[in-house]
Amino acid sequence: MYRPLILISNDDGYEAKGLHVLTELAREYGDVVVVAPDGGRSGAALSVTFQHVLTSRLIKEELGLKVYACNGTPCDCVKLGLAQYCDRKPDLLLGGINHGDNSAVNVHYSGTMGVVIEGCLKGIPSIGFSHCSHNMDTDFAPMIPYMRRVIDYVLKNGLQKGVCLNVNAPDTPTYRGMKVCQMGQGVWTKELDARVSPRGFKYYWMVGEFRSDDAPETNSDWNGLHQGYVTVTPTKIDITAYEVMEELGELIINN
Amino acid sequence: MYRPLILISNDDGYEAKGLHVLTELAREYGDVVVVAPDGGRSGAALSVTFQHVLTSRLIKEELGLKVYACNGTPCDCVKLGLAQYCDRKPDLLLGGINHGDNSAVNVHYSGTMGVVIEGCLKGIPSIGFSHCSHNMDTDFAPMIPYMRRVIDYVLKNGLQKGVCLNVNAPDTPTYRGMKVCQMGQGVWTKELDARVSPRGFKYYWMVGEFRSDDAPETNSDWNGLHQGYVTVTPTKIDITAYEVMEELGELIINN
Repeated sequence: MYRPLILISNDDGYEAKGLHVLTELAREYGDVVVVAPDGGRSGAALSVTFQHVLTSRLIKEELGLKVYACNGTPCDCVKLGLAQYCDRKPDLLLGGINHGDNSAVNVHYSGTMGVVIEGCLKGIPSIGFSHCSHNMDTDFAPMIPYMRRVIDYVLKNGLQKGVCLNVNAPDTPTYRGMKVCQMGQGVWTKELDARVSPRGFKYYWMVGEFRSDDAPETNSDWNGLHQGYVTVTPTKIDITAYEVMEELGELIINN
Repeated sequence: MYRPLILISNDDGYEAKGLHVLTELAREYGDVVVVAPDGGRSGAALSVTFQHVLTSRLIKEELGLKVYACNGTPCDCVKLGLAQYCDRKPDLLLGGINHGDNSAVNVHYSGTMGVVIEGCLKGIPSIGFSHCSHNMDTDFAPMIPYMRRVIDYVLKNGLQKGVCLNVNAPDTPTYRGMKVCQMGQGVWTKELDARVSPRGFKYYWMVGEFRSDDAPETNSDWNGLHQGYVTVTPTKIDITAYEVMEELGELIINN
């Protein structure tokens, strides 16, 4: 019987618990190749490394599983995995489980969703999983049955070309269910913590507070998470704002 | 008379010719603050730095112009510029001029478009400019009149919330005109150049060949550039795939 091939990466690095939990779940479905960063790459988005060379090393090899660590970004890991470590095109690409929320506009900064968008760009059905807790030892068990439902669905039905899934779970011991949602709107504020070094120069840590702009009735992932739902946000590669093309055409071109 | 405030960044670094050309053009319109990376950050996408601290230094100060270099990513530069170096909310954010094409799916990897998407996330009318030549001394003069038309339009009319512009110019001495386009589809192939170090370990340079998947009649930015047009691709923050929500809702939730 054919065993699906599943490629996995993340942005918390190859040692993260979320990656291990996702890997063990994926092994129930098929052969697994993990190519993950050799350390934390939170906020890496879809960044790609051109300024230095990439290297990787085999961390673990068991029947149906190979794990590699790479010095690059999450997106580099996917490219390396596809080019070097997968003997055929994967049937599924999984990102995560991320330690931290990737709902709302955070999808744009997320290295885990970078993995997933890269998989989608390569024509592979791709799913990102994130958990709202930043605790590196958090209990992912309540999320597992929901992950199974999503993986079962995607392995059976595939996903439309150019569409991937962003799945987030609240930091609560139980959930009210699962919801298909739109991406929430909002903005990060107070993003820089300015300090002065012992030698007197100013430096900054990136921090921030997220302010949701979703109305309470909006079916957004941000709202869904705060109501206790696991959220599934279908996410697309084509980011053209078709709705303004005609207006821009008139105003820019015909003037 | 009120002078617009214009924030500029790029991903080629503060010394790049494209940044200088854009800065001089922007100074015709208002007061300019430049916060740019201290070196090349091509492929940085919307990545943000959490793993180390950010620092910056003043490079140049003239009437109506301040230029800073920062050790972070293009997106970090925007966040730093807004939090530390702009005395009011900018009226306009400009990215570029990038040395190299940011059309089609390249928008997802582009640090220049990272700058622009970050500006858009912050509610600032934002435009990215890219030129298809990678020659660091390329002549941007043919592009300038088209850039003026876009900047004039945006300063006068603004842009719809959550929409920014991705403007690309072909590497040709003259253009056939300007076109409003959709984002092209396609995929990068042959992305890794594998080599062996003098000490015998394998390493990789990120390279690649882009294969467009656009039909010849598609009004895509990729096609437009190859037909000799300056292309304007309206790009959106909300990347929800609304068209599959109902289908996913039935299949995932009600099973």
